[in-house]
Amino acid sequence: MGQDTTRRAFLQGLSAAALGISAGVDLRGQEAVRIDPRKLRERIEQLSVFGRPAGGAFADGVSRVAYSDADVEGRRFVLAEMKAAGLQPRIDPAGNIFARRDGTAPELPPILFGSHIDSVPSGGNFDGDLGSLGALGALEALGAAGVRTRHPLEMVIWAHEEGFAFGRGLACSRIAAGLITSADMDEVWNGLKRGDAIRKIGGDPDRILDARRPKGSHHCYLELHIEQGGTLERAGIPVGVVEGIVAIDRYEAVVTGVANHAGTTPIAERHDAMLAAAHLTVAVRDAVTRLPGRQVGTVGHIEIAPNSPNVIPGLARVSIELRDLSSAKIDTMMDDIRARSREIAATTGTTITFSRAMTAASAAATPEVQSAIERAAGSLALATSRLPSGAGHDAQNMALLGPMGMIFVPSVGGVSHSPKELTHWDDCARGADVLLRTVLEMDRV
Amino acid sequence: MGQDTTRRAFLQGLSAAALGISAGVDLRGQEAVRIDPRKLRERIEQLSVFGRPAGGAFADGVSRVAYSDADVEGRRFVLAEMKAAGLQPRIDPAGNIFARRDGTAPELPPILFGSHIDSVPSGGNFDGDLGSLGALGALEALGAAGVRTRHPLEMVIWAHEEGFAFGRGLACSRIAAGLITSADMDEVWNGLKRGDAIRKIGGDPDRILDARRPKGSHHCYLELHIEQGGTLERAGIPVGVVEGIVAIDRYEAVVTGVANHAGTTPIAERHDAMLAAAHLTVAVRDAVTRLPGRQVGTVGHIEIAPNSPNVIPGLARVSIELRDLSSAKIDTMMDDIRARSREIAATTGTTITFSRAMTAASAAATPEVQSAIERAAGSLALATSRLPSGAGHDAQNMALLGPMGMIFVPSVGGVSHSPKELTHWDDCARGADVLLRTVLEMDRV
Repeated sequence: MGQDTTRRAFLQGLSAAALGISAGVDLRGQEAVRIDPRKLRERIEQLSVFGRPAGGAFADGVSRVAYSDADVEGRRFVLAEMKAAGLQPRIDPAGNIFARRDGTAPELPPILFGSHIDSVPSGGNFDGDLGSLGALGALEALGAAGVRTRHPLEMVIWAHEEGFAFGRGLACSRIAAGLITSADMDEVWNGLKRGDAIRKIGGDPDRILDARRPKGSHHCYLELHIEQGGTLERAGIPVGVVEGIVAIDRYEAVVTGVANHAGTTPIAERHDAMLAAAHLTVAVRDAVTRLPGRQVGTVGHIEIAPNSPNVIPGLARVSIELRDLSSAKIDTMMDDIRARSREIAATTGTTITFSRAMTAASAAATPEVQSAIERAAGSLALATSRLPSGAGHDAQNMALLGPMGMIFVPSVGGVSHSPKELTHWDDCARGADVLLRTVLEMDRV
Repeated sequence: MGQDTTRRAFLQGLSAAALGISAGVDLRGQEAVRIDPRKLRERIEQLSVFGRPAGGAFADGVSRVAYSDADVEGRRFVLAEMKAAGLQPRIDPAGNIFARRDGTAPELPPILFGSHIDSVPSGGNFDGDLGSLGALGALEALGAAGVRTRHPLEMVIWAHEEGFAFGRGLACSRIAAGLITSADMDEVWNGLKRGDAIRKIGGDPDRILDARRPKGSHHCYLELHIEQGGTLERAGIPVGVVEGIVAIDRYEAVVTGVANHAGTTPIAERHDAMLAAAHLTVAVRDAVTRLPGRQVGTVGHIEIAPNSPNVIPGLARVSIELRDLSSAKIDTMMDDIRARSREIAATTGTTITFSRAMTAASAAATPEVQSAIERAAGSLALATSRLPSGAGHDAQNMALLGPMGMIFVPSVGGVSHSPKELTHWDDCARGADVLLRTVLEMDRV
């Protein structure tokens, strides 16, 4: 099909969209566009060498922590690929990589889509990489097919998504969302100043406030990502439509007992902080499972003192992390845990106090974007399922600026943040095609 | 009373004892003998300066770890006090300090009694010190009163009683009990060879096997010690008669689950090693309290991986320590814990394995020695109570060689191995007097 035919089909689609009519047969040209699955796989494999364990293979995962040399090299690779695809990437003052493709209506805000390429230590090769290289594949496919959208299209590779460097993730999309002050550039982690870290990846900490994007500056934000849980794989559904990103409340519970001799202290005289922490851990699970729904709660961290087999622990610190789309439900769970902790403290002769270590609000995916993803998947005859995202994503910061939606593809065994992380290549390609189609769907509304 | 009168009284007592008759009135001379409480207190206070925290006071406790400079200085102080009391101390090849006082029947084996003066890091000034300086006070009191016993008397200050250096205590009484090989001298702890450590305190590792004492080489072994638990203090009883030193079994439980994302992994799909470890900790307590008696059980150590608030723990290691006079009861508790762990593993989707990290047999106190302690306390109009020792003591090694008994005095609040360790001076003096009287009681049987 020649350029002219495609263009005519597109303009017909545009007028149909302008009338609020489903694009239908008028868009046959666009509907034939597909990303190149071979190229997508090749790029994911090529990117995987930056941060690969010495002597390892693709299946051995990757350690590409934000601001590391591997991160810098990985970014260099992706920048080169973007240029090779005819794009002109730019790095914003926060270190985020953007590349824009003009639309036919320059006055419209861009459709923004992308992900990240940094990883946790000993992570996998799909978390972030798929959404980043899928976005590139989508732009490339549109270019190859000569499809022009009304809205400008803008792909993004967010810097520093994972919560390892500086102890907290989603860092550079947070800057883009305006949740930053110049003083934050002085924060130090492992001897590295945040400003210097950002400079290392090509950002400009002196102009950090210029990285802020105003509200409404994009038509919508889209992100393709692996599920990281096992829901889609178990259900045999290739596409997940994210309803929203869960809120997170993280507490530290401090249990104070009395350290004493494990041999000479009768059971009735003990104030055992470990025993209380154990009851508390069980109470967290009970509080979570008592309610219907998909909420989760985790005790992932414990520290006891003196931590010796022959001494009754006098102190325990445990983390309690609760996640759900509904903050009200998180509060209900926490109330339950607090009530239970009073009983535990009384029966174990300890005191238990809680302090909130972290809180993140939930971010609902925009219903119109969810519908667009479903139509996109439907046009490819792919079944979908709506589900929450239990993990945080840069999309939640973009939700502060405008409509947002996320596409999930199955993770084998639900494993993530691990070298064992795996999404089948077919699922990767399907996800990138759904992203591409969703861009086109959103271009019509 | 002159020397002759005392001697006559003693000999009458001896002949009464030889006839199996309670010494009764014949021993009025001996019964008047008391240790010097002022001197006992003074010595405990003087000894406390060796290892005292810089700028601290008596109440700030002591760090006199075996083989440390403070230990060497403390031993030097005690040796000088022993010499000042007219004794001729000798150091055996293991570093244990002995001093002998002849009896009237040189062919009889000695009555051995004493304790230790090393401490845990940040320990107290009564654990070991009271029994050591109480033994010296008893010998001195007998000397001052001119009392001669049939049996030779031998006081001992065991080296390296606390389980800090080389990760295990009761070390030099173990050598005396023959539980040693020359090769053990090559063991290294903190860069220090055991042989060199023993040399530092005046021992002779090249002749270490000569420190072994044959079975039956003493008439009995007696040790005065603080209770370290709160039983006597709570009951208002000044003298505890130890029934025996409990057996200890220490296990390491390894819980294997699957580490996964704390946000994306649904509750039903988790294999949470921390949750299983928590249930196991509760199961240990339940197994201990389900049976009547004074057995104890402790989870004092836990280590989980990766130990991050946002990751479901994939691995947990917990210590399980069980103590009781009866090994059969310990086995019953452990069977209960194992049975419960199978249910826990099944419900949490984990595996739980156990390995025994340490075991110590119980050591029963000899019934005749327990009776002698009771008679001794009775002669001083002091109430007694029988109780197990939940802590290990050098006495358990001496029980391998002959009759053994221990005298406990109250610990305020049951606190021990802490600068807050405290036994009232009156109770210290009472304990030393009971030790002295028990020596005399045992001299008669």
